[in-house]
Amino acid sequence: MTETVAAKGKVYLVGAGPGDPGLLTVEASRLLQTADVVFHDDLVSPAILALIPDQVHVENVGKRCGQARVGQQQIHSLMINAAREGWTAVRLKAGDPLVFGRAGEEIEALRDAGIECVIVPGITAAFGAAARAGIPLTDRRLASKLVFLSNHQCAGKSPLPEGALSRETTALIYMPGSEYAELATRLCEQGFDPETPCLLVSQATTAQQQVHLASVAGLVDAPRLAAPVVAIVGAVAASYLARQTRFTKAGEDSRPDLNLELAGLRS
Amino acid sequence: MTETVAAKGKVYLVGAGPGDPGLLTVEASRLLQTADVVFHDDLVSPAILALIPDQVHVENVGKRCGQARVGQQQIHSLMINAAREGWTAVRLKAGDPLVFGRAGEEIEALRDAGIECVIVPGITAAFGAAARAGIPLTDRRLASKLVFLSNHQCAGKSPLPEGALSRETTALIYMPGSEYAELATRLCEQGFDPETPCLLVSQATTAQQQVHLASVAGLVDAPRLAAPVVAIVGAVAASYLARQTRFTKAGEDSRPDLNLELAGLRS
Repeated sequence: MTETVAAKGKVYLVGAGPGDPGLLTVEASRLLQTADVVFHDDLVSPAILALIPDQVHVENVGKRCGQARVGQQQIHSLMINAAREGWTAVRLKAGDPLVFGRAGEEIEALRDAGIECVIVPGITAAFGAAARAGIPLTDRRLASKLVFLSNHQCAGKSPLPEGALSRETTALIYMPGSEYAELATRLCEQGFDPETPCLLVSQATTAQQQVHLASVAGLVDAPRLAAPVVAIVGAVAASYLARQTRFTKAGEDSRPDLNLELAGLRS
Repeated sequence: MTETVAAKGKVYLVGAGPGDPGLLTVEASRLLQTADVVFHDDLVSPAILALIPDQVHVENVGKRCGQARVGQQQIHSLMINAAREGWTAVRLKAGDPLVFGRAGEEIEALRDAGIECVIVPGITAAFGAAARAGIPLTDRRLASKLVFLSNHQCAGKSPLPEGALSRETTALIYMPGSEYAELATRLCEQGFDPETPCLLVSQATTAQQQVHLASVAGLVDAPRLAAPVVAIVGAVAASYLARQTRFTKAGEDSRPDLNLELAGLRS
């Protein structure tokens, strides 16, 4: 097999969205029905995997603590080999494939192998979480900027300059990890007031969704929720509280798993 | 009609995504088929509006230069009255409804009127643009942060602190306006090198999509493209060039409207 043999197959790099199958795009939904093979991450929700027909070969290439993982190079080889077999392969990633998902390396590997790659965007976890919590991510009265960070920035690997995040910013923290005390310290260093509201959302938009509202300072006492977790930090997060007080009897938000930490938020 | 009369209708605040109907969510697609009324913004693509069945009442409540606009308060009243009639109303916004869309005010108005409001997220324009351009928005080798800004921040109304945006940042500029020289100055003040790649994408994911690659300094000479435009600024934008050189014969990207400004980008 040489580089000069043009592959007939194709790889679709597809966002699965936050978890609710209704939040798949029409195009993603179609591709899951028609693919020959699906390579998916661990964080793709079971409800979405259940939509894939039996004749489609489905392979979990995710990594999870305690389990053997498929290396990044192996994932590249799996995709390339599938395309060279003439297959339609879907590389399915939770959320949007271009945000915190190593898509750059996968796109490059496919390009270098001469494989056609089509990217289908997905609803990123924070947008799903904000929609279910009723939180506008920007608001011309409260927040004019939106910043996506992963735990790496928050853990000090490549921090923002001190004071970079003002009161007018909403920060979306992906994979916040379990060191909430350290996260709180970093957020304060980067310009957030300790009393800034912070909404933790676990398994957003799925039946297992859990939500915990705290302040940045109050993160220290926040429970460790099941992955994936996204934290929405900023003045807009307080509107979750307004929604709760109005709609406590309106359905899913009155579930017993709802845990509100109100300290410092009744301004 | 008093506040104590519970409305039977419901308002769905729905993201239409960037333009391609295939990038609607399954849920949004379903709602457009079953709604009684749709109130939409100007920037929702004609291809998406064409999906709405004839029996659904469709009203454009967007604003556009030169035309009389529907005020924000009027939009609130339209939604509230529709819900009080017992109707299922869809408030359809381009992209994601919670990003730069005044959703906060609309959610609040509905809440204050006792109207149930359900938010359905959508693919935000920049994610659609990045997917079609083949640009990873984060990349562990190049960009670890993602910042959404509207032209207001860039026009100096509420700028980021000087130097806030490092080389490791991808900035997504919504509604960059036509003062590209000023935008370039602001981006440099906020920490971007003048040689940073900047991809302008107009009408992302539609048949009318146009793309222009420049450097931040080269924005001065960039063409004014049709709204909506989103600018993707950061090292990752250069991967658009890599894709072009590999796939110039692979279809839509070889269209004559493709305009590449390469100055300063061949590193």
